[in-house]
Amino acid sequence: MARLSLNQRTTAQWSLREALDGARAAGLSSIGLWREPVAEVGLETAAQWVADSGLRVSSLCRGGFFTAEEPDAREAADADNRAAIDECVALGTDVLVLVPGGLPGGSKDLAGARERAAEAIGRLAPYAGERGVRLGIEPMHPIFAADRGVVSSLRQALDIAEQHPASQVGVVVDTYHLWWEPDVEQQIARAGERIVAYQVCDWITPVPADNLLGRGMMGDGHVDFPAFTRAVAATGYAGDVEVEIFNADVWAAAGEDVVATMARRYAELVEPYL
Amino acid sequence: MARLSLNQRTTAQWSLREALDGARAAGLSSIGLWREPVAEVGLETAAQWVADSGLRVSSLCRGGFFTAEEPDAREAADADNRAAIDECVALGTDVLVLVPGGLPGGSKDLAGARERAAEAIGRLAPYAGERGVRLGIEPMHPIFAADRGVVSSLRQALDIAEQHPASQVGVVVDTYHLWWEPDVEQQIARAGERIVAYQVCDWITPVPADNLLGRGMMGDGHVDFPAFTRAVAATGYAGDVEVEIFNADVWAAAGEDVVATMARRYAELVEPYL
Repeated sequence: MARLSLNQRTTAQWSLREALDGARAAGLSSIGLWREPVAEVGLETAAQWVADSGLRVSSLCRGGFFTAEEPDAREAADADNRAAIDECVALGTDVLVLVPGGLPGGSKDLAGARERAAEAIGRLAPYAGERGVRLGIEPMHPIFAADRGVVSSLRQALDIAEQHPASQVGVVVDTYHLWWEPDVEQQIARAGERIVAYQVCDWITPVPADNLLGRGMMGDGHVDFPAFTRAVAATGYAGDVEVEIFNADVWAAAGEDVVATMARRYAELVEPYL
Repeated sequence: MARLSLNQRTTAQWSLREALDGARAAGLSSIGLWREPVAEVGLETAAQWVADSGLRVSSLCRGGFFTAEEPDAREAADADNRAAIDECVALGTDVLVLVPGGLPGGSKDLAGARERAAEAIGRLAPYAGERGVRLGIEPMHPIFAADRGVVSSLRQALDIAEQHPASQVGVVVDTYHLWWEPDVEQQIARAGERIVAYQVCDWITPVPADNLLGRGMMGDGHVDFPAFTRAVAATGYAGDVEVEIFNADVWAAAGEDVVATMARRYAELVEPYL
């Protein structure tokens, strides 16, 4: 379990306090935090709790949402992302996960939205680098291209990331978002040291009515975790492996049971291939 | 309306007879047929009706489903696809749309499924070419990678198609499946004369619970039809433009109204850019 991290959203039924305690009780050494539950208790308190827990923070979710067209909204997004970078520092993680954002309401200019996302990353990269934080561009499954994430493949995320030093901008490799990408193994090899986070969960079918909740526990869907994990390991990736599952059934279960299942599946399908 | 084609599934509420009559009544000159309704009346009768209607047949949907692992199932798929090619000849169309098929039940070997699809296309290509039929590989939105279509991008479809003469194997360019692809305009340019069919419909959100029915009338969703159509037209594509919509609301409406709306949206969003 030395590299297994509980992404906080996997146990959305838990408060931050419960998630820290639950992760420790399960013998994990790492946790992935979200900004909203951190803000609920206050950054200082959260940082103290995290330090006391002895857990590593594998990443902070999430910055991004860069696709607005109006200058005011873009400046607000920049400011919010600088705040998120500062929160990373306070919480002791060097990874900020970036969700690019979708098409602005009514817009059909996907190329323009992608360009604005890339530009925002360029504006923020030095600020992140100076603080020892790496921005992790998260390419998202094309099902979300309209409403959540206009960066749709690892290839595309790398095209953006490679315009900046690897110490400033990397990519988040998430099995759920990328398992379908035709040349994903080559793109993972290309990513190399730019992989700042490896997130795992499964693509399940049928996709539920609320598409956001279509993530399954590893082994419940169609992803070939051994092959995917081997490709990530071959890059020399030595970081934590975050389990991030949005799923109504998982959220309805007891947090302890979710973490136990997650640890078992990880031990079976992921850890041996790292 | 000289190049507008009614794909039969857009008016699934209509029989073949009604669709032929409805398309003519609306002033269209082309129709895209499906094998099942053709089989219902018998191939010979269908061919006669089509000839009498004076409509072109822009394509026949659909061959494919190539991903089975067992030799018997693969041979059966080959035989069925040869039959579909023969049906194209009988119906007077030179395009067979291929839906690659999904992962076999329980399998997580996406690479293997893709390889088997490519191999099957290779086995069928000469048979098609000898009969004057072009196989149209339809890359499908990655939402369908597990259960319907393992070819997930135009780039990937072209990697397969280019292994064969353009007179035998091409690609189907469908706005719904491809609008998110990061370099889709370059891939369309690359496709050139291999574009055997241009199908239009919109990507709408929220994606409905039955994902197969998430296609919208042009203009109801997020696709930039002028830009997409310009890219297709720039290749010299001179074929028909099929409207193919799977949508419960569209199917619940009167067929005449659907065709009228479709013609209006086509005239507004597609035709001027051809």
